[in-house]
Amino acid sequence: MKKNYKMIISYDGSRYHGWENQPGVEMTIQGKLNQVFSRLAETEVEVIGAGRTDAGVHARGMTANVHLDVPYTEEEILQYANRYLPDDICITELKTASDRFHSRYLATGKTYCYTCYIGDRKPVFQRKYVYIPDGIPDIPRMRQAASHLKGEHDFASFSHNPRMKKSTVREIYDIRIEKKGPMLTFTYHGSGFLQYMVRILTGTLLEVGLGLREPDSIPELLQARNRSLAGFTAPAKGLCLMKVDYQ
Amino acid sequence: MKKNYKMIISYDGSRYHGWENQPGVEMTIQGKLNQVFSRLAETEVEVIGAGRTDAGVHARGMTANVHLDVPYTEEEILQYANRYLPDDICITELKTASDRFHSRYLATGKTYCYTCYIGDRKPVFQRKYVYIPDGIPDIPRMRQAASHLKGEHDFASFSHNPRMKKSTVREIYDIRIEKKGPMLTFTYHGSGFLQYMVRILTGTLLEVGLGLREPDSIPELLQARNRSLAGFTAPAKGLCLMKVDYQ
Repeated sequence: MKKNYKMIISYDGSRYHGWENQPGVEMTIQGKLNQVFSRLAETEVEVIGAGRTDAGVHARGMTANVHLDVPYTEEEILQYANRYLPDDICITELKTASDRFHSRYLATGKTYCYTCYIGDRKPVFQRKYVYIPDGIPDIPRMRQAASHLKGEHDFASFSHNPRMKKSTVREIYDIRIEKKGPMLTFTYHGSGFLQYMVRILTGTLLEVGLGLREPDSIPELLQARNRSLAGFTAPAKGLCLMKVDYQ
Repeated sequence: MKKNYKMIISYDGSRYHGWENQPGVEMTIQGKLNQVFSRLAETEVEVIGAGRTDAGVHARGMTANVHLDVPYTEEEILQYANRYLPDDICITELKTASDRFHSRYLATGKTYCYTCYIGDRKPVFQRKYVYIPDGIPDIPRMRQAASHLKGEHDFASFSHNPRMKKSTVREIYDIRIEKKGPMLTFTYHGSGFLQYMVRILTGTLLEVGLGLREPDSIPELLQARNRSLAGFTAPAKGLCLMKVDYQ
């Protein structure tokens, strides 16, 4: 009997062309998962992710689901998949879910963390997971700017795709900016995020922190709905999908 | 005027054929440092390391020295070197030392840490810095075995090179075996270590921990002076040189 399995996935996105399986592209996270579960199920199956992460972006809490008809326990399925997945992808939890569970349609929120390294020396062992800004950004200035981003807004200025026909309105529940030793982290919790949105938000906040734009210029920037007025797209390697919410 | 500079170096050894510069081998840590300092000094210089780490071994506290005649401050030299070194090698400290300081001849002790991952899932973000043993080793058994290794002994059984003519006597001051979350660490502090010695000690202790040999078989093993009787050589990626002592 077919069951629907919900899973949480960690991955180091460094080697991958993002989450989404694409014809002719070997290195995608979804592609690797599809292969392993299809082999287990002895038929083609597709793993459905809560969203797409871009090339080079990491995850500690991607959520996905897959329908399988296999005579194994949850732990056996998880162990099998982890054994055959590359060592930079790991399913950390796998549980039977309701048949109606859909990891993308039912997601009510996501948390992303962007990490910058602001220590004196080079982050030799963390280098693939952090971005090094050109200076030490001012945290109170960035928090002031972030306060304007919270709430429901049209984030077209912070979207990669200017001709997007779908709504560019999203709600940001919270943005936390914290210094932990030599790491500066930006944690975004929201209803959902447009493509590149977290990276453009981070690039814009960093420019505020480095004195290149004013904290109170954000409302005008939101109103303009113009990507070219926002900050740079912070590099993928600093970004990590931490958690997906369901009701 | 020529000055002698002492430095502390961190590196991720994953991409390198070890510390030692070798003709025809491009990827060595010492080779990269020699290149950068020769460029700065506008003449061939050689960086002297406290010891050689093998291919794939990491360091957080390699110590080295180099004689340079350059008109720059310590911080300027350090910044220059770090800018031109690859992002997996970083000089964390650099200070003028006495002309007689020699990082190898004057070293009086070294600390190495070997890290095993014993968590339930795969260590996606730490995978290049840990070894995953085939089971959960028993810590009290390993501590009992380690107690026999402390002190001055002939470590020929734990040496890679069976025909070594030099003395194989070394002193181990302390071995600490600790569980920190999903990590199991072996910290070795000693007068010096033979080639592969820390990895063979760790392989042997793991075999004790997994019940494949007895804790009290260690004295006999030391006496045998026979490499083939000791345990397996634990993989390089779990090993890191933490600190070099000087009087």
